Amino acid sequence: MQQIDLHPLTAAAFLPFGQVIQTEGADHYAINAGMTERYHDLAAVELTGANPRPLISIFRGQPYQLPLPLKMMERHPLGSQAFYPLSAIPFVVVVAPDNNGQPGRPLAFITAPGQGINIAQNVWHGVLTPLQQTCDFVVIDRGGDGNNLEEHHFSTPYLIAATT
Amino acid sequence: MQQIDLHPLTAAAFLPFGQVIQTEGADHYAINAGMTERYHDLAAVELTGANPRPLISIFRGQPYQLPLPLKMMERHPLGSQAFYPLSAIPFVVVVAPDNNGQPGRPLAFITAPGQGINIAQNVWHGVLTPLQQTCDFVVIDRGGDGNNLEEHHFSTPYLIAATT
Repeated sequence: MQQIDLHPLTAAAFLPFGQVIQTEGADHYAINAGMTERYHDLAAVELTGANPRPLISIFRGQPYQLPLPLKMMERHPLGSQAFYPLSAIPFVVVVAPDNNGQPGRPLAFITAPGQGINIAQNVWHGVLTPLQQTCDFVVIDRGGDGNNLEEHHFSTPYLIAATT
Repeated sequence: MQQIDLHPLTAAAFLPFGQVIQTEGADHYAINAGMTERYHDLAAVELTGANPRPLISIFRGQPYQLPLPLKMMERHPLGSQAFYPLSAIPFVVVVAPDNNGQPGRPLAFITAPGQGINIAQNVWHGVLTPLQQTCDFVVIDRGGDGNNLEEHHFSTPYLIAATT
């Protein structure tokens, strides 16, 4: 299996695939008479296709162990999908450029506490991959009509490395 | 000052004002080969007016102490506003029915760990009110053109009670 190295998640590295949702580096301003700081508009929510609407859900993800075979990637042709973790555990984010309708060579990132992601519409990505323990995530994605899921199974799985 | 009693937040009690975002009582199903449970579509996101779009932001709220004077309420005529806490501390949710364009007698709820809220479009509510310590919240509300904020200042403040 070809090995995919893990890299720390940064806004710049993730930019071709979506946005890192984090307060660091974000525009922010005080509201509520100074008692609340608003870190504003951290993700580009994309909603297309027939009768689209944003969904707010909670995903409860069971943990995986590294090294981890990567057998499948998926994408959502009709909308973006944002994940924000409800604990400080790291999770692995696997994305890939498109290569003629299939995922090209994947990239794997590991999050720091306080980092969520918004995967842009139609970007190939792996499944939700928390490490260490079960973690809940707030998820904002697209509801509506039409098929919003495409999967690609690799003939030869990749192997996501155990360390950065 | 008239006292407003605190009540535990429940989905049924909050229904006239929006939704409680929680896994308890939610529709859910397994995805990702059984490794993730999706608690699906927990809030009615409302986006109206000119050029509306959903925003994902993080609000960092400083804590308040009870009993707490309630001097002002606000509402957002063009969209809903969802808050999900990133720690297990309680927060106070104050809402009121509309009474001829002004807030009627307010109701005050206190959250349990794992509860967020979605305040429906145009529902009178208080500001973000975490207790005990600073808390970050994932917020999903409405961006776009037009004035989406209306405030009402009470001539005589209410007092939110210290205990349920």
